[in-house]
Amino acid sequence: MQTQVGIIGGGPSGLCLARLLSLAGIRSVILERQTREYVEARIRAGILEQGMADLMRRAKVGERMDKEGLLHDGIVLTFDGREERIDMASLTGGKQVMVYGQTELTKDLYDAVLADDNITVIFETRDVHPTGFLDGRPQLEFVKDGQQTRIDCDYIAGCDGYHGASRAAVPRDMITEYERIYPFGWLGLLSETPPVHEELIYANHKRGFALCSMRSHTRSRYYLQVGLDEKIEDWSDERFWDELKKRLPEHIAANLVTGPSIEKSIAPLRSFVAEPMRFGNMFLVGDAAHIVPPTGAKGLNLAASDMYYLSTALIAHYNEGRDDLLDRYSETALRRVWAAVRFSWWFTSIMHKFNEDPIEHKIQLAELDYLMSSTAGKTTIAENYVGLPFDPTFK
Amino acid sequence: MQTQVGIIGGGPSGLCLARLLSLAGIRSVILERQTREYVEARIRAGILEQGMADLMRRAKVGERMDKEGLLHDGIVLTFDGREERIDMASLTGGKQVMVYGQTELTKDLYDAVLADDNITVIFETRDVHPTGFLDGRPQLEFVKDGQQTRIDCDYIAGCDGYHGASRAAVPRDMITEYERIYPFGWLGLLSETPPVHEELIYANHKRGFALCSMRSHTRSRYYLQVGLDEKIEDWSDERFWDELKKRLPEHIAANLVTGPSIEKSIAPLRSFVAEPMRFGNMFLVGDAAHIVPPTGAKGLNLAASDMYYLSTALIAHYNEGRDDLLDRYSETALRRVWAAVRFSWWFTSIMHKFNEDPIEHKIQLAELDYLMSSTAGKTTIAENYVGLPFDPTFK
Repeated sequence: MQTQVGIIGGGPSGLCLARLLSLAGIRSVILERQTREYVEARIRAGILEQGMADLMRRAKVGERMDKEGLLHDGIVLTFDGREERIDMASLTGGKQVMVYGQTELTKDLYDAVLADDNITVIFETRDVHPTGFLDGRPQLEFVKDGQQTRIDCDYIAGCDGYHGASRAAVPRDMITEYERIYPFGWLGLLSETPPVHEELIYANHKRGFALCSMRSHTRSRYYLQVGLDEKIEDWSDERFWDELKKRLPEHIAANLVTGPSIEKSIAPLRSFVAEPMRFGNMFLVGDAAHIVPPTGAKGLNLAASDMYYLSTALIAHYNEGRDDLLDRYSETALRRVWAAVRFSWWFTSIMHKFNEDPIEHKIQLAELDYLMSSTAGKTTIAENYVGLPFDPTFK
Repeated sequence: MQTQVGIIGGGPSGLCLARLLSLAGIRSVILERQTREYVEARIRAGILEQGMADLMRRAKVGERMDKEGLLHDGIVLTFDGREERIDMASLTGGKQVMVYGQTELTKDLYDAVLADDNITVIFETRDVHPTGFLDGRPQLEFVKDGQQTRIDCDYIAGCDGYHGASRAAVPRDMITEYERIYPFGWLGLLSETPPVHEELIYANHKRGFALCSMRSHTRSRYYLQVGLDEKIEDWSDERFWDELKKRLPEHIAANLVTGPSIEKSIAPLRSFVAEPMRFGNMFLVGDAAHIVPPTGAKGLNLAASDMYYLSTALIAHYNEGRDDLLDRYSETALRRVWAAVRFSWWFTSIMHKFNEDPIEHKIQLAELDYLMSSTAGKTTIAENYVGLPFDPTFK
C-alpha cells in the first residue's frame, strides 16, 4: 500500500489535516486504533478559537459548526467576591471564540473524511510503528485484522496524542522533553441543564478554582479543582453542586440550575513540550508534541496551528516544489506552542490554589485587580484567550 | 514636648512627609536613631518614578534633582541572546523615570527639613516607643542623651522601616503579616565607571539574573543574582566583572568598562506586607509596612504613594476638618502596595533563575517572547515600571 502522507491518529488533528491536504489534491491514509464510534464519543474540549474555526471552514467541514456553535464575545472572571468581564471582542478588534463540542466537530470531520476519495481511514489498527523516517524511506507498519501490514509514504504526520506511537519511535537522543505536573486535578461534570451564565465563568476562590462552561444552551459542563488524591466515588452529584456554589459569588450561585450528571471524571493537569517537532520525514502534530492544562482551553486550538503550518508546508512541497516551509515547521510551530504553554500555565497559576501560604492568594488577587484596572492588562488576557495569530510573528 | 504629627524615622519617607505637612502649616517632630551623616550615606534605591519626583517637587526639594537627575524613557531587557527595549514613555503617554540616588535625595530633604520652622528633628534617639495610639492619646517615648523623654502628638507616622518600633508596637492580634523570602540574593557593586548603556539593562540568563544600573554618567551600579550561601569575600572585583560579562549579550558585554569597586555587598530579597496600615492614631508608611524585592525599583517609590495618601489625609483633617481620607488611608494605600508587590514579584520571577528545571527557563523565555511581540504586553510592563497612578482606581 502506498500514499503521500501517512497520518497516525484519527482524532480531530489527523482528520482535519487530511482534509486540508485533500483539498489541495494530496492523498493520505489515516490509521486509527479505535472505532469511529469510540473516537466520536470521547469528551474533550469545547471552545474553538477563531483560528480553529477558520480551519474547519477551510477544510469545508464548518457548516454545522457555524449553524449550531455559540459565538462568545467575552469571558467572566470572579475573584474576591468580584465579577469582572473581559470583553475579548472589543479588546482584539472583533475576535471571538466558539462553543462547539469536540464530539460534534469530530462527527463533522468523519462525515467529510469518509466521503473523501483522497483519504483512506483504517480503523482498529494495532502495533503501529513509523519507521524509516530518518532515512528518507518513511513507512507505517501496523497490524490490521491480525495481518501485519505496511504503508509506504513520503511523509508521516504523528497526530496520535501524548501516548502515541509517533513520538515514542524517535531515538531518545534526538528529542528533548519538558514537563510539569500540577499538584491538583479537575473534577468535571456534564449535565443536561442550562448554563448558569451565557459566557464562561472562571472562578478564583480560597477553596480552589471552579469553571462554569457549556456545550450548548441546554448542556452544561462544570469543573472543580480537586486534590490529586480525590476519588470520583467520593463525589456525589450533590456534593459537587454544593462545592461549586461555594466557589461562585452568591448572586451567580443563586442562578445555578443543578441536575443529574451525564458524565463525571477527574483529570490531572500537565504541561508538556517535546522539541523538535520534526524528525526527518516525520512531523509531530498536536498532543503528540505538547500538552497544556485545560485552563486556557488551548488543547485542540494549539493543534490547529500545527495543522495549519504543516498543511501549508506540505502543499507548498507538493504543489510548488518548495521545502522551506517544511524546514521551518518545527521552529514556527514551537514558537506558538510555547506561547500557549506559557499562557495556559499562567492562567492556571493565577486561578488555582497551589498551597496554604496566604501571600500566594493575595498576590493572585493583586494581579487580577491590576489586570482588570488596565486596558493593556485585559488585552493580554483577551489576545491570548482568543488565540495568538498563526503568523509566526504573532502579528 | 508637644507636636501635631510625631514621625518615627528620618529616612526619605519621614523627611518628605514632614515637608508635605509643613507646607500646609502642620507641625511635626522626627525621631531618628542615627546621625544625619549616617542616614545620608546609606546606599539604597536609585530610580524615582514620576510620582515620587513630583512629590519631591511638591515638597519644594526637587531643584537639584531636576538639575542633576537623568530622565529615562525606557529600559532594556535581554534574554535568549536578544536585546529588547521597552519604550516606556511612548507606551504610557510620556511617563518617565529618573535616575537620582537616594543618598542625594536624602541630602536635599535634610537641607530643607533642618531649615523648616515647622519641623524638629531629634537625632540619635534610643528606645523609641509609640504608645496610646489605640486610646486616642498618642505619645512617643524615647531616650535622648540618656534622658527619658516624651512627646504628645495627635498622630504618629511610622516611617521607621522593616525593623522599626512602630509596627513592633502593634498588638499581634491586630496585624496580619504576609511574607515571601526568595531563594537567592543580589550581589551589588558600585564603581566610578561610565554605565555600559544609557538605559538600565535587565538580563535574564541561564546563569542567573544581572542588572546594569547607574547613579550618574560616571558612576555605575551593577548587580548579580547569587545564591543565599555566597560570601562577599569570595567575590573579587575581577570575578564580579567576569560573571557579569557572561550574563550579558556579547555585543553589550564588549562595551562594559570595568574598574575598582567603591562598595560591594550582598542583599537578600523579600516580599512583605503588613495589614492594615492604620492602628488608631498611628499610620505605617513605606518599609515599615511593606518590603519588595528590588527588581522593579519600587521600594522608595512605594513609600511615595503612602506619603501622598497620608499627607493628603492629614491636611484634610487639619485644614478642612475631614477625616474620611484618614479612615480610607489603609485600604487606599494597600491597594497600590499589593499592586507593586505583585509587579515586583512578577518581574523577579520572570528574570531570575529559581531552579534547575529546564521548563522554568523555557516558560520565562516564552513569556518574554510574547510580551515583546505584543503592544499590550509591553504596556503592562511599562505602566507598572513607571508607577501606577496614585489615584485609588489606578486611572
